[in-house]
Amino acid sequence: MAQYGSRLIVPIDVKKKPWEQKLPLHNRWHPDIPPVAEVKVGEAFRVEMVDFSGGGITQDYTAEDIKHAEQSIVHYLSGPIRVVDEDGTPAKPGDLLVVEILNLGPLPGDEWGYTATFDRENGGGFLTDHFPCATKAIWYFEGIYAYSPHIPGVRFPGLTHPGIIGTAPSLELLNIWNQRERELEENGLQTLKLCEVLHSRPLANLPTTRGCVLGKIEKGTPEWEKIAREAARTIPGRENGGNCDIKNLSRGSKIYLPVFVDGANFSTGDMHFSQGDGEVSFCGAIEMSGFLELKCDIIRGGMKEYLTPMGPTPLHVNPIFEIGPVEPRFSEWLVFEGISVDESGRQHYLDASVAYKRAVLNAIDYLSKFGYSKEQVYLLLSCCPCEGRISGIVDSPNACATLAIPTAIFDQDIRPKNNKVPVGPRLVRKPDVLKCTYDGNLPITKNPSTST
Amino acid sequence: MAQYGSRLIVPIDVKKKPWEQKLPLHNRWHPDIPPVAEVKVGEAFRVEMVDFSGGGITQDYTAEDIKHAEQSIVHYLSGPIRVVDEDGTPAKPGDLLVVEILNLGPLPGDEWGYTATFDRENGGGFLTDHFPCATKAIWYFEGIYAYSPHIPGVRFPGLTHPGIIGTAPSLELLNIWNQRERELEENGLQTLKLCEVLHSRPLANLPTTRGCVLGKIEKGTPEWEKIAREAARTIPGRENGGNCDIKNLSRGSKIYLPVFVDGANFSTGDMHFSQGDGEVSFCGAIEMSGFLELKCDIIRGGMKEYLTPMGPTPLHVNPIFEIGPVEPRFSEWLVFEGISVDESGRQHYLDASVAYKRAVLNAIDYLSKFGYSKEQVYLLLSCCPCEGRISGIVDSPNACATLAIPTAIFDQDIRPKNNKVPVGPRLVRKPDVLKCTYDGNLPITKNPSTST
Amino acid sequence: MAQYGSRLIVPIDVKKKPWEQKLPLHNRWHPDIPPVAEVKVGEAFRVEMVDFSGGGITQDYTAEDIKHAEQSIVHYLSGPIRVVDEDGTPAKPGDLLVVEILNLGPLPGDEWGYTATFDRENGGGFLTDHFPCATKAIWYFEGIYAYSPHIPGVRFPGLTHPGIIGTAPSLELLNIWNQRERELEENGLQTLKLCEVLHSRPLANLPTTRGCVLGKIEKGTPEWEKIAREAARTIPGRENGGNCDIKNLSRGSKIYLPVFVDGANFSTGDMHFSQGDGEVSFCGAIEMSGFLELKCDIIRGGMKEYLTPMGPTPLHVNPIFEIGPVEPRFSEWLVFEGISVDESGRQHYLDASVAYKRAVLNAIDYLSKFGYSKEQVYLLLSCCPCEGRISGIVDSPNACATLAIPTAIFDQDIRPKNNKVPVGPRLVRKPDVLKCTYDGNLPITKNPSTST
Amino acid sequence: MAQYGSRLIVPIDVKKKPWEQKLPLHNRWHPDIPPVAEVKVGEAFRVEMVDFSGGGITQDYTAEDIKHAEQSIVHYLSGPIRVVDEDGTPAKPGDLLVVEILNLGPLPGDEWGYTATFDRENGGGFLTDHFPCATKAIWYFEGIYAYSPHIPGVRFPGLTHPGIIGTAPSLELLNIWNQRERELEENGLQTLKLCEVLHSRPLANLPTTRGCVLGKIEKGTPEWEKIAREAARTIPGRENGGNCDIKNLSRGSKIYLPVFVDGANFSTGDMHFSQGDGEVSFCGAIEMSGFLELKCDIIRGGMKEYLTPMGPTPLHVNPIFEIGPVEPRFSEWLVFEGISVDESGRQHYLDASVAYKRAVLNAIDYLSKFGYSKEQVYLLLSCCPCEGRISGIVDSPNACATLAIPTAIFDQDIRPKNNKVPVGPRLVRKPDVLKCTYDGNLPITKNPSTST
Repeated sequence: MAQYGSRLIVPIDVKKKPWEQKLPLHNRWHPDIPPVAEVKVGEAFRVEMVDFSGGGITQDYTAEDIKHAEQSIVHYLSGPIRVVDEDGTPAKPGDLLVVEILNLGPLPGDEWGYTATFDRENGGGFLTDHFPCATKAIWYFEGIYAYSPHIPGVRFPGLTHPGIIGTAPSLELLNIWNQRERELEENGLQTLKLCEVLHSRPLANLPTTRGCVLGKIEKGTPEWEKIAREAARTIPGRENGGNCDIKNLSRGSKIYLPVFVDGANFSTGDMHFSQGDGEVSFCGAIEMSGFLELKCDIIRGGMKEYLTPMGPTPLHVNPIFEIGPVEPRFSEWLVFEGISVDESGRQHYLDASVAYKRAVLNAIDYLSKFGYSKEQVYLLLSCCPCEGRISGIVDSPNACATLAIPTAIFDQDIRPKNNKVPVGPRLVRKPDVLKCTYDGNLPITKNPSTST
Repeated sequence: MAQYGSRLIVPIDVKKKPWEQKLPLHNRWHPDIPPVAEVKVGEAFRVEMVDFSGGGITQDYTAEDIKHAEQSIVHYLSGPIRVVDEDGTPAKPGDLLVVEILNLGPLPGDEWGYTATFDRENGGGFLTDHFPCATKAIWYFEGIYAYSPHIPGVRFPGLTHPGIIGTAPSLELLNIWNQRERELEENGLQTLKLCEVLHSRPLANLPTTRGCVLGKIEKGTPEWEKIAREAARTIPGRENGGNCDIKNLSRGSKIYLPVFVDGANFSTGDMHFSQGDGEVSFCGAIEMSGFLELKCDIIRGGMKEYLTPMGPTPLHVNPIFEIGPVEPRFSEWLVFEGISVDESGRQHYLDASVAYKRAVLNAIDYLSKFGYSKEQVYLLLSCCPCEGRISGIVDSPNACATLAIPTAIFDQDIRPKNNKVPVGPRLVRKPDVLKCTYDGNLPITKNPSTST
Repeated sequence: MAQYGSRLIVPIDVKKKPWEQKLPLHNRWHPDIPPVAEVKVGEAFRVEMVDFSGGGITQDYTAEDIKHAEQSIVHYLSGPIRVVDEDGTPAKPGDLLVVEILNLGPLPGDEWGYTATFDRENGGGFLTDHFPCATKAIWYFEGIYAYSPHIPGVRFPGLTHPGIIGTAPSLELLNIWNQRERELEENGLQTLKLCEVLHSRPLANLPTTRGCVLGKIEKGTPEWEKIAREAARTIPGRENGGNCDIKNLSRGSKIYLPVFVDGANFSTGDMHFSQGDGEVSFCGAIEMSGFLELKCDIIRGGMKEYLTPMGPTPLHVNPIFEIGPVEPRFSEWLVFEGISVDESGRQHYLDASVAYKRAVLNAIDYLSKFGYSKEQVYLLLSCCPCEGRISGIVDSPNACATLAIPTAIFDQDIRPKNNKVPVGPRLVRKPDVLKCTYDGNLPITKNPSTST
Repeated sequence: MAQYGSRLIVPIDVKKKPWEQKLPLHNRWHPDIPPVAEVKVGEAFRVEMVDFSGGGITQDYTAEDIKHAEQSIVHYLSGPIRVVDEDGTPAKPGDLLVVEILNLGPLPGDEWGYTATFDRENGGGFLTDHFPCATKAIWYFEGIYAYSPHIPGVRFPGLTHPGIIGTAPSLELLNIWNQRERELEENGLQTLKLCEVLHSRPLANLPTTRGCVLGKIEKGTPEWEKIAREAARTIPGRENGGNCDIKNLSRGSKIYLPVFVDGANFSTGDMHFSQGDGEVSFCGAIEMSGFLELKCDIIRGGMKEYLTPMGPTPLHVNPIFEIGPVEPRFSEWLVFEGISVDESGRQHYLDASVAYKRAVLNAIDYLSKFGYSKEQVYLLLSCCPCEGRISGIVDSPNACATLAIPTAIFDQDIRPKNNKVPVGPRLVRKPDVLKCTYDGNLPITKNPSTST
């Protein structure tokens, strides 16, 4: 008789610390982190995962844990997972690893999550110059829906996805990463206009032994020291996939990942119950623990066949993917635009990041007129299923970015009206997000045209 | 008995030149361009328009007209149209003008369009450093569908929309535009890193009397000279809406435009049969003549009520809009990613423009494996209903942008396969786009990792 | 240079009577009605059509024209159209004619329509035992939208389609039709339980020379007399397609029609701006004049290849079709059920017609609580884009049918609420449909459990 | 701190028999079956359930269990569940019980299901006169997808739903049911034309003590005897909801059920991984065990407010519901029509059941040309997400029903083609469904126009 169900290959006990799990987790990318499990192509298997903070951020009604969150420990990943074909031959560098997401969701018994903004001096976010404080909202899940006591009046179905899925880099690729990111950090502030507008710091997240967890590699050994010093941080997405935070990577999606080491050794983590395009508040999806049911395939030689490199080496590639068939369906959207003129009125050149920043600011101000605090909307736009689009990227000097928000997630009609009436929710002040003070002294961007 | 049908307020005869039309067109933004028509709120009316080039670009099978296109004459707009309420009181500065798109389409008898890339020295485009030549593809419409003899094997329904719709700026707003864009042009190359990656030139398009058309203002008069010297070019989208190139602004959409002058005096033009997010090739939608059926409303005091300014003055606002209910429907998408590392391997900081450039380059290379030339795919991605998303904008240093392409527009299965077979279309070389030589001497960006 | 646009092959002047049109119309199915036009496969062409009544039903605000409508003249069709391949060889019996709907819509300048119920003694409808009066509502079109002064508070985009498209029958097929329908009319009342529940009369619409129009066949000639006596009425859909009233047969759809005579000789008419599944009020879509842009193909031998006959002869087939990509999109639906128990409480056996009747009655009663008359809802459910489903057909003795209504077409929230408040529209009595008295004496079905 | 997750109120152990479960199940409707659990409005709770057969039908590769299935034991339901408000006051007759489906799915570790047709003499199905044999196909689930070794070449995401959800009837309502169904069974064959076309037997499923399970009521007691003799069978859907088999009642749906007894006492069961409209093969969805996460609300007096009775008593009502936001999304459909002419060529009067039967027969014959047996297609159309529509119900004498099949569920292109090529799957004979002989002697309907 045929098999059914998924073989559990990475179990998680959310009551335990990351380093107490049955199979060790890791929070760096390096070719020498040994696999913790092996799967065959065609086999359905289940991977469980802690939330990105490994339980460091709690469901307590306080933002103190956010304010003092340790950035060096993100993200705790499950894996690496080694993939072999029917004959037991592992995936090889140059192959394409196909990962199909058969299903995913929160871990049973742990149906809650959080959305937060880090303190400006400890991680920041897309709008950290406007919102420097650490804030947090807790979300509870009712089946497919999430709601938050800290952002009342909204409820939406999750477009759940793993924020991170990626293969292990080869040493060559790892060196490319470390070199280019170090260069940015060293020279960036002097050369990059964008840094003055996007205030998140640091510019890059370079290797550090601090907070480093390397799976089966025991801490303190020489091997650990060596790897920890060169292993890439998991914060940015890169050629191996990684932290791409693509919100549509949900049930039924297929990801085609390049293979750089024998066995592919892919890892996954940072599950999101829901996220808006851009994940603007940074700690910004509805972060949670969770599970994935997966099935793999190997396209032999697929990198050459399907992924043309774009850059100095054949390793400069990006994954591709297919969207699955069961995304939540919305038919009405309110759309905000932004152009590449910043808050001071300065003109930028075809800069989609600046344009998107302005679109998000526009949306926050708009929605705050309906009874929300701006912090509530900032968190909401970071985690609800809103769509961020690059609408025009050629009409010099203005890029035009748009942010589309499904109107059905609100319990009131948020569209502009000709005959407005003072309906209830708009006037009532709601409970607010959990919030800490900002004790730093970096300058805050004020909207020059408002007095508040 | 009730009225039905739309009152034709701006007629176009496509056999005539732009300056021979019954109601004069214009191609600049300025408060002193007088309205050519007046409409009442609630009234359905019809506006016809020439293509953005006013017939300068023809359906001849040559790209010479593209190569030598006069940039100063874009875009020929229909309007301005003055809007008054039931009592005849015009829209006032501070109001919000609601424009509902009841219907739109090509002009009967003129059911064709074109997609093109300008020569690198004459306008360029998003990838002009890779594709410096002028190219052109002609599209013919079969009802809701477009197909091109120059890009065989694809056919798709149009998500038709006006590239431009905007209200007249006040003099104060106009001055803000001219000042900030002049500043960019004067200092940009020295200060903007992005300029080295996005090679389109010029940085901004400043006012010029060359090619200027001002509606009822007669050319050569002192008034014309004055206005022509200060009137804003129509190329970028700005606070008044304008050339936002938002592909979803189609049938049933509602646009909420800020009003800066008495009567709102809105203009529209640059109709697109279809466009991809970003309109990457610049002359990049399926450009055509067309008609709009519209209905207006006025929300008195709506700017203050709904549009919070974000910038130094109360004029620093952006329009908002709602998406209509009849967009073409696709259920399967192939998605390409890009991160903010440029073709030379250099790391940029959370730069969504660079990330999107790479996503588009990835998609071009991928699709060119299926029997297309890269120029064909470049034009195709510019005009087909593909979606450009800002997926992650906070994971320093990499922004992650995605480009999703509906697979149903192809006559072959373009998804990666495990057991590829040499199916027909993939091996057959198709007819190609119309193309001119590039005679300039600006450096071309080569993909370092390919020998072709 | 390539061709574009559609060749107009059947023009209509709505100011003229059906018999005054440039190309003669017809309102019967018969192999000997000569084609009025010829098209080649691959060619885009345009067919215009009068409304089904040929202008007999007017936009006057009265239902008198409905009450006294002449049933024998329906439906005025455009065609027949002969189809040949590239070599000029006509479609042959046994082929499959592929008709692609490239576009369609109202005739310019005639953007209005009507929905009506016939008097019970003159045509009736699905609920004629409950609603025996002739009623009428006029709809005006604003681009993609329709609204009615007689059913205020609703507005919806059209899923426009031709009610009728069909090929000419062979004589053999025509004889099959006439024989089986005559048999029904002669014996039906005695043998069919369903007749007591579905009160429409007559049971069948047999050939009659009264009102007969036969295209190029001149009235009064012996040929006319012969054909008129045997030509099938156009009211029911049959093996040749015909009046199938499939609401999803809209832009981008493809219909695969069996070919029974040389050239296929297909005709089309009865354009609907919008229709609900079932078209329950009978004169029930938003009936209008209109145009179709079409393109044909011939699949040689396709009947045998693709259409297995189901019945005593190889002619007992049905067309198949594909749905197009641009239907209006709704994401929220309120659904009403019905089971096969009739209004008297009697149990019927797996009868989907009875179940659907009850679902419609349930919906009418429900919606009438929101400020509408039942007649308004009856017309609305007949013409709005609601979906009628056979949900369960095996759970003896109850068939279960459902009627799903998109909630977005209403200007109020029609979902059941826990804390209902007396909001405006629900309490205000609206203008009503146009209505005549019922002067007949057939028994009216009253809902036994209401006193009204 | 807030609660999250669902309280498990009805646990199931699939390794145990129905009568060994911790909380007793039941398979009849009767007001005197006591509740097994109580929930408060607003509380999220979890109900688990066996498959409808309680494990009687196994995953063995044989159809013998289907052939000899005991019909009297269907369906094993979980419940009744008593619903009270925040104050502990139960739902009352006349209220409306709102049940929201927060989530649902297969039971972990039991991710498989089956689709079957009963033997013609033991239950039959919609096409039992054509397909009299017992057949079975096993389906395995891979996350959101189902595939079957017995119907290769198809795979589809589930639109999972409970086939049955309903409130307990009052004694008055129960008597109405028993009376009208007995009347049908006694007189049906003489009076109902439809019986000759829809061959399923028996006409109704009357109360029987055989196989009866009544929850906490102990078998053999006088109380049990009394209730068993009058309790309604669960096969048909009725006024209380029940076995409505509405395939869209999935994640995020809300059901508004009438309340007939104190506490509402609703039960649920018969989980379907997926079902096509009509569930034509009768044992016809992908039948499985499963779980529901639910939340209830009470609309006091809601029956009167929202459900107008249609019939002799105020109890003649039907539930209403809202569709949820996460259904699988398909954009391409192939559609088959049927008209109310039966296989013998006889004309029926506006009979949607006959029309749908013909549409299904047409689809089976069509798809069987692509390498499938007709039995495979019959089962497939019963359980895949196909849509059955009542397209026209007024064009005497023909009802027109349509069956729309999403083309994306097949691994080959099933659309008609002009240049067909002998592609692989079409020619290859696949493994077939599990099948028993038909040993009865009822006449089989043959398609008169085929020799096979």
